[in-house]
Amino acid sequence: MNKLPQKTALLLIDVQEGFNAPLWGMRDTPQAEENIAGLLAKFRAQSQPIYHVQHLSRNPKSPLAPGQPGVDFMAAARPRHGERIFQKHVNSAFIGTNLEEVLRKDGIQRLVIGGIAVDHCVSTTTRMAANLGFDVLLVADATIAHDRKGHDGAAFPAQLVHAITLASLHGEFATVLTTVSVLDIAFQ
Amino acid sequence: MNKLPQKTALLLIDVQEGFNAPLWGMRDTPQAEENIAGLLAKFRAQSQPIYHVQHLSRNPKSPLAPGQPGVDFMAAARPRHGERIFQKHVNSAFIGTNLEEVLRKDGIQRLVIGGIAVDHCVSTTTRMAANLGFDVLLVADATIAHDRKGHDGAAFPAQLVHAITLASLHGEFATVLTTVSVLDIAFQ
Repeated sequence: MNKLPQKTALLLIDVQEGFNAPLWGMRDTPQAEENIAGLLAKFRAQSQPIYHVQHLSRNPKSPLAPGQPGVDFMAAARPRHGERIFQKHVNSAFIGTNLEEVLRKDGIQRLVIGGIAVDHCVSTTTRMAANLGFDVLLVADATIAHDRKGHDGAAFPAQLVHAITLASLHGEFATVLTTVSVLDIAFQ
Repeated sequence: MNKLPQKTALLLIDVQEGFNAPLWGMRDTPQAEENIAGLLAKFRAQSQPIYHVQHLSRNPKSPLAPGQPGVDFMAAARPRHGERIFQKHVNSAFIGTNLEEVLRKDGIQRLVIGGIAVDHCVSTTTRMAANLGFDVLLVADATIAHDRKGHDGAAFPAQLVHAITLASLHGEFATVLTTVSVLDIAFQ
């Protein structure tokens, strides 16, 4: 991969304080916030477009419900003036928002995606982005997984959930790569 | 769970001969076709609506490309006269089709979903169905996974891909259950 084409945007999904709540269970990728901050800094320095997605839960008990402090963006991912914010109520950032319309209007062809959680909102948005015709670079270590339990009670650690989520997406919906690749290769 | 509400439909995704091609790698759930046939028989016997999704690949080398024998439905899942078929070109059965419009017009509230592959087209369609407001019952053993490889070369067996795919969907996008539960409980 060489220099990113002009029309590459950063799409950050649900990087919000509410995901620090203990109810989500154990998480992986402790360096994700730092990586997200690094991606943001690079896109800002290169004047590449940045879009933030913010989840507003319809469940009033969720730390991501409107009015809760958890809806705020984490310090690593606070939008700056002029960066668009898309508020959503479901997993996909393309459902109930005008994200697709804005991306098309802005001429975006490729999305660099990071955020939370990799197997819920990040995976769903990545899948729809690809199926709508966008080229997706999914940044493995700028996303976070949590421990999950199956319908039969089987328990799966966050790191394994993360790895298999990415394996299902890689090559079919996205090119999976690391923050270092985006920062050192894609922008060189 | 008691009797299914009136407006429950069976949605079968890409149950096509082309998935028998060796290029997909090792698969799991050898009983999936039999379970799919069982679901179809039950929905037909109860006169509940049935929708078939058929993938037509845009990759001319794919066994699922138009003109290839692999586009045909497997014997277990051949549509009968009067059952609608939705042809698609991407993973989601809701993109590039009028599936959502038809489901709404037909008053469908709940979907029982099975098909191939669980982490690609089945997961993507399940996620969109849920985010569009449909209630989804995802039938674990009426879906199939294949071995997958990560972007870093790590290999994951089909059964583990299957289990973690379902764990990520269960409770967030769908209720995951078995064919026996649908046949013996939901229709009793």
